[in-house]
Amino acid sequence: MPKLHPNIERIVELIHLEEWDQIRSALASWHPADIADVIDLAPRDAQDRLFTLLSDDAKPDVLSELDSYAESEVVESLTNAELSEIVEEMDPDDAADIIGDLSDQRSSEVLELMQEEESEEVRRLLKYEEDTAGGIMTPDVVSMRSDQTVGEAIEAIAYLDEGEPFVYAYIVSEGERLTGYIDIWELLREKNRQRPLSELCHTEFVAANVNDDQEDVAHLLSQYDISSIPVIDDDGRIVGRVTVDDVIDVIEEEASEDIFRLAGSDDIELETDSPVRSCIARLPWLLVTLFGGLMISLILKQFHARISSVIILGAFVPAVLAMGGNTGIQASTLVVRTIALRGMEGKSITRLLLREIAVGAIMGTICGLCIGGWALVWLRGAPEPGFSSMRLASVVAIALFCAMSFAAVFGALVPIVLNKLRVDPAVASGPFVTITNDLAALLIYFGTTIALLPLA
Amino acid sequence: MPKLHPNIERIVELIHLEEWDQIRSALASWHPADIADVIDLAPRDAQDRLFTLLSDDAKPDVLSELDSYAESEVVESLTNAELSEIVEEMDPDDAADIIGDLSDQRSSEVLELMQEEESEEVRRLLKYEEDTAGGIMTPDVVSMRSDQTVGEAIEAIAYLDEGEPFVYAYIVSEGERLTGYIDIWELLREKNRQRPLSELCHTEFVAANVNDDQEDVAHLLSQYDISSIPVIDDDGRIVGRVTVDDVIDVIEEEASEDIFRLAGSDDIELETDSPVRSCIARLPWLLVTLFGGLMISLILKQFHARISSVIILGAFVPAVLAMGGNTGIQASTLVVRTIALRGMEGKSITRLLLREIAVGAIMGTICGLCIGGWALVWLRGAPEPGFSSMRLASVVAIALFCAMSFAAVFGALVPIVLNKLRVDPAVASGPFVTITNDLAALLIYFGTTIALLPLA
Repeated sequence: MPKLHPNIERIVELIHLEEWDQIRSALASWHPADIADVIDLAPRDAQDRLFTLLSDDAKPDVLSELDSYAESEVVESLTNAELSEIVEEMDPDDAADIIGDLSDQRSSEVLELMQEEESEEVRRLLKYEEDTAGGIMTPDVVSMRSDQTVGEAIEAIAYLDEGEPFVYAYIVSEGERLTGYIDIWELLREKNRQRPLSELCHTEFVAANVNDDQEDVAHLLSQYDISSIPVIDDDGRIVGRVTVDDVIDVIEEEASEDIFRLAGSDDIELETDSPVRSCIARLPWLLVTLFGGLMISLILKQFHARISSVIILGAFVPAVLAMGGNTGIQASTLVVRTIALRGMEGKSITRLLLREIAVGAIMGTICGLCIGGWALVWLRGAPEPGFSSMRLASVVAIALFCAMSFAAVFGALVPIVLNKLRVDPAVASGPFVTITNDLAALLIYFGTTIALLPLA
Repeated sequence: MPKLHPNIERIVELIHLEEWDQIRSALASWHPADIADVIDLAPRDAQDRLFTLLSDDAKPDVLSELDSYAESEVVESLTNAELSEIVEEMDPDDAADIIGDLSDQRSSEVLELMQEEESEEVRRLLKYEEDTAGGIMTPDVVSMRSDQTVGEAIEAIAYLDEGEPFVYAYIVSEGERLTGYIDIWELLREKNRQRPLSELCHTEFVAANVNDDQEDVAHLLSQYDISSIPVIDDDGRIVGRVTVDDVIDVIEEEASEDIFRLAGSDDIELETDSPVRSCIARLPWLLVTLFGGLMISLILKQFHARISSVIILGAFVPAVLAMGGNTGIQASTLVVRTIALRGMEGKSITRLLLREIAVGAIMGTICGLCIGGWALVWLRGAPEPGFSSMRLASVVAIALFCAMSFAAVFGALVPIVLNKLRVDPAVASGPFVTITNDLAALLIYFGTTIALLPLA
């Protein structure tokens, strides 16, 4: 039994001590996925060294599990001959992932060195975009004819080459068109071995097109709770299948992407230990925020003469901004996640917006009352000459109410519009919504106070 | 073939028009998962009505796919006799989910009405916490003895009751202890039907304990790329299995939870159309923000006399706050997601913190230079009497640098500490980190300016 949950941190220590022999013998008993984690975490200059410590058996599995940075380090350190040998031992979809990351020249050199049959399969897979059904599928499918008998099918399975495990065998017509599937376990339970497969065949099935986006494929599998989905080309021919474990990575990736984008960063951060790469991911969004902040400073400068005469109005500016920004991001998050999990169609947009109007109004009322109450307490201790406390407090409360109501609707609207424009709604929602809502909140706040108060 | 991706919005329109006959005939051809989506989206008072339109065959599948609000509406409208009949037709794990949501009295009434065998199985499952391996597993496993032959095993499978599909059969010793597994497809490929299973049996396997957290089970399946994992009790006896499609829901749920919490809300929002429920999810976090904002107003009041004499210092307050808050949330997000995907052990915390110090310093330098440059431009147009422009600009730049460096480290530290305290790091990271960083940024900003400038 491979050691599971091994002590990765211990190995990282040994790397710093350069105890290569100890590392080699420790890794020998590990699961490839755990070895890959160690290499991912290791300092860049130790990654290829670690890979050379592995047995030839382990290399293909480990290489296919590495993250993109570690993968490119390791691949660069290998000769074409070494790489082609390793890649040949991989499942064709994993091999295509590795070869797809190479330069055009190197990938054709490596493919040349591979055995004809394997390289053909990889070449076919390389034609598909990485984030489509074709990019994540395995071409290993078991297909049968509907006029075969149960007995023949069971016999045929016994003579198959080894491949990934499967639960469904696909029934194809002449011309390899997919017409249905059979469940392996139904096949096994069929007591009449002479029965033709046509009688066991399910002709109601869900299939993905080879060019479908990987997220859509993930939706299909999770919506219809199926463990594997056949992939067909535009002519209805079966070209592969996507299993639910391929899709787990897709779901985790997409969730990471959304989370990082909402925070104003990029999930590339998960794959690197380098502060510079983190900065590259985060800085653009910080600069958006900074730009917004500097715009706010201009507005404040403009209103300074009016505001500074009433201390409480200036003191509440950060509170109003924070509330506007936060309310907006809550609304955006709901919409971004709803779109990610369920997609979004025509009518429900109106429902969603109506709801956000209601939510913004309720929350605005409650928070408005809170800030108004606080203002009254404040003004009792430090009254503002020339203004009734009640009036000032009401104005602040109304301003916060307006800012929050706007923010909720705007926060929901931005990802809806981005989605309509076929831009990933998560991309621009986080810092963009926050800073725009900050700006809007400020203008609403000043607008309300100036409209309702006899300021200088 | 069931109609897939049906026009859900059309049905929602028909609900508003109360065209029940049209709805009934439309839904008759739908997949249960899609019918469940319609009921989830329907107005609350139409949900039980819609359920009554379904055929008896469809009811169990649809009920098990409903979200928790719709489920409780529908279940409330059913008599105990109706409910027990529907639940009996479900997979035992789905049945246990429904019955587990009932009141104690009602659940025992419904269990009484069910057939002995089914109710026993459900009772056993109900003992496990909902978010553990026991709570998401199915008890349907195929187990065999290692001294059976390949031929006997294939025969035995043919006589099994119908259940969920499977790819592995488990080998158990006397006393039902799990000792290994066989792959169904390896079984089928074995040409020697007389071979004992012990020779095909894999004794290296990954198993989950029945009390393991569902997230940990999801990690195991995704880390080791396996499609189903056996679940054992404390004595090593096999009690069920968790398949990768059960785990997809867990991964989606956990990602949603993290996303909503970072935004200051709760993923309950995905399950409801009610603005009031949304407000209940969002308000606590907004009130945290509001409280922080009001604290900020107190600090501003305190510094008002000093600040208001230098317009530019006051005008930059929102920019500094926004940068502090955003930098903190970026750092928190990285840590929260790293913990969610990989867990976190001893040594890597130091690495992570060192990295955040570097990231904060780099970003602080760049953004500090930007705001300093902007300040110089600003001061050329509107110089502040009594201060050299260069000095003011440097002070603002240094203050932003300090605030961002602090925010990056603090933002990373909060989820690490929460994780150590065994609190979900996502819970308090979002608005809590933002508002604390806002406060800290303000104090750092004032501290720096007062230390470096001869303010009144």
